[in-house]
This record gives sequence, C-alpha cells and structure tokens, in this order.
Amino acid sequence: MSNVQNDSSKSLGEIASEKIIKLIIDNDWNVGDKLPNEYELAEQLNVGRSTIREAIKSLTSRNILEIRRGAGTFISQKCGISDDPLGLTFVKDKYKLALDLLEIRFMIEPQIASIAALKATKEDIDHMTTLCNEVEELILKNEPHMDKDIEFHRAIASSSQNIVTTNLVPIINSSIAIFMDITNMQLRQETIDTHREILNAIIDRDANAAHDAMLLHLVHNRRNIKQVIRDNKI
Amino acid sequence: MSNVQNDSSKSLGEIASEKIIKLIIDNDWNVGDKLPNEYELAEQLNVGRSTIREAIKSLTSRNILEIRRGAGTFISQKCGISDDPLGLTFVKDKYKLALDLLEIRFMIEPQIASIAALKATKEDIDHMTTLCNEVEELILKNEPHMDKDIEFHRAIASSSQNIVTTNLVPIINSSIAIFMDITNMQLRQETIDTHREILNAIIDRDANAAHDAMLLHLVHNRRNIKQVIRDNKI
Repeated sequence: MSNVQNDSSKSLGEIASEKIIKLIIDNDWNVGDKLPNEYELAEQLNVGRSTIREAIKSLTSRNILEIRRGAGTFISQKCGISDDPLGLTFVKDKYKLALDLLEIRFMIEPQIASIAALKATKEDIDHMTTLCNEVEELILKNEPHMDKDIEFHRAIASSSQNIVTTNLVPIINSSIAIFMDITNMQLRQETIDTHREILNAIIDRDANAAHDAMLLHLVHNRRNIKQVIRDNKI
Repeated sequence: MSNVQNDSSKSLGEIASEKIIKLIIDNDWNVGDKLPNEYELAEQLNVGRSTIREAIKSLTSRNILEIRRGAGTFISQKCGISDDPLGLTFVKDKYKLALDLLEIRFMIEPQIASIAALKATKEDIDHMTTLCNEVEELILKNEPHMDKDIEFHRAIASSSQNIVTTNLVPIINSSIAIFMDITNMQLRQETIDTHREILNAIIDRDANAAHDAMLLHLVHNRRNIKQVIRDNKI
C-alpha cells in the first residue's frame, strides 16, 4: 500500500494510532463497540500507557474513537469522518462557498438518484419512505428538519450502493448548513413535494424521473439560497 | 452559525482549539505561517499552557497545524484536510471502493473540465500546461507520476473556480491510489494523449471537447482498474 511510508518521521503516538486502527479492522469491531482499556491496549500493542493515551486522543480528534466519561473508549458514530473533512474552515467567502457546494450537489445528486432508482433494495425503500415521512411531518409542525433532511439525502446516496457517495453527500449537505445560515429558507412546500417525487420515482424504478425530480429539488434550493444571499447583502 | 452548539459538552482543549482557529482566521494567517509560542497563546487566549498543548495536538492531528521540532508550530500545508476525510479507512472491499471512487470521478470531472474551459484564467492555463508537461516527462522517463497526475487534475478543478471541487478532486483521486495498488496501471500513452486533449480543449475554450476528453480519460482508467482487479482476483 502506498500510504505506508517514511515510518521514521512518525511519532510513537502516530504509530500506536495506526496499530489501533489495524486492531479495529482485524477484530471486525463496529461503531459503538468498546475498546479494551488503556492498560490492556498498552499490553497488547507493546507500547507505554502514555503513548496509548496520546494515540486515543489523536483518534478521538479524528472522530474515529469517542471517549465517554466513566464508561470507556468506543468506536465513534462519526466513523472517522472529520468535522471539516474538506478543509473549508478557512474559506472566507461563505456565500460563494455555499454556491460551490451546491454546484457539486448538482453534479452528483441527480445521477445518484438515477442509480438509486435502479439499485435500491426493499430495505432501502422502507428506510427512505420513513425519512421522507419524518421530514414532511417536521416541516408541517414547523420544527427544524435539517438533520432528517440530510439523512434522507444520505439514504438515497446509500441506495445507489456507492460507499463513497454515502459518506460524501452528508458532508456536502451539512457543510451548506454549517457555513451558511439557511434557517430563513422558505422551501417548505417545495421540499415536501420534490422529496416525495424523488421517492416515488425510485419506488417506480424510473431512473429518469428520479434524476429530474432531484434536479428540480436542487433548482429550488439554489434559487432560494441565492435569494438569501441577496437579502443578506443589502 | 448552526455549528456552535452545546458548549458544555466540549472539553477545555476543544474550546481552545476553536479559539486558535478563530485567531488564525481573524489574523489572516496563511499556510506556512508560524504561530505564537505556547506561552504567548496561553496568555492571549487566557487559558493554561497544558490546555494549549492539548489544543495544538488536536489541531495537529486534524492537519490544521504542524509541529516542526525545534522550529515551532505552523499552519499546515494540508490546510486542515484530514488524511482520510471521507472515512474510508474501515471499508473492507478495496476493489469495490476503487470503483465507487471512480464512479464519483465520472460524475464530477467531465463537468468540472467543461466549466474549466469556460472559466480558466491565463495563470490557470499556464499552471495546467506546466503540470501536463511534467506528467508527460515523468511517464516517458518511466518515473512515478501519480503525485503530479493528481496535481494536474487538481489544477483543472481549481480552474473551474470552485473552492470545494479544488479540495475534493485530489481527495478522491489520491484515495484511489491509497486504497488500491495501481502501480501496475498500463496507461502510459493513453494518459499522455487524453491529458493533452483535455488541456487543449480548455485552451480552446471548447467546453464540450473538454468534457468528452475527460470522459475518455476516465473510461481508460476504469477499464484499466477493472483489468487490475481481474488480474488480482485469479
């Protein structure tokens, strides 16, 4: 593997981090599983306890592990996806950033919806249906629906059976929410309608209709974000 | 901003990390700039030195900072893009992963090439030309060209003036190299030809030709990766 290189430049903590990752993979541990304690890890990996502590801290800030006080160290729900995976923290023009993120959604999400229409399993469809209903309910009750909305789009990506888009779509979509205040978005009815249209197209195995419904959904989103930008630039 | 929430659940180190990030943004510090020392940071942010040390360690593992022994702490060249931003470390089927990554390249890179043909500046074109020549030279000398190849594709993404694809394209492309041994790739002449074709189309401001040349380039890549997978599955 070309990613293992130049070991001499790595600190003990980094080497221990890699050993812990290997341990997780080899033992087939999953999200939420508890790691052996510091003492056992030090023993097993044949390194000092302070090195283990350093490794655990580093893996925690990489969102691979999660320390629950009093309970121990666990494999994080965040699956190692960092808080700002695309390195956008330092981008200054947040409006341009929001539009750039949306440009990527235009490139990938309609195609993902097409593939989902062809590849979604029965379980995928049940899951998407539940989320679509939940988002609709939240919107009608006037409650925050962003998290469920992102989950719905993630479920579509996951139905396309592509591991990478499943992780990438929520990163892109939540970045838009993080870097731009879109609480003023007035897309309640459009969101309900186009989400439902996407879902129905996938259920009907109609790849083109799924593509087009997703595209329409994004068009509404882009128009609205541009409106928010105009309003804020006054 | 909706990403600032639930401060009580954050450790002192995490809060200090956020303060350091704010300091970097507010002071307009750039990649390679040196941070004030531990003592000055502790003073400035009004926290203990051990907290600063913890924050610096965490920002280092997030690739935002970089410690050079004996020299100090600097803003990392990696711009805060983590080593495995998409959380792919734990994916088991590396062949499927390589094809899934490539599926995303098919979704975004031809469109990016089109946009680059419309938006590339004179400087962008000079930069792409240099990289195209360098990749060609390395291939003809039979030397490893992967890093320069990724840089060439990054330069195209950057020419589309989209901040996010500029960061995303190298992540996707280097992930393919990381997770799959593609040293056996036999695409020397195809790479030289299609890279040149993409570049010329961008120079000619021909968006369709740039799109199609990139698509052709990816088709060669996918065929070759599938061949490598077949060869390794024997």
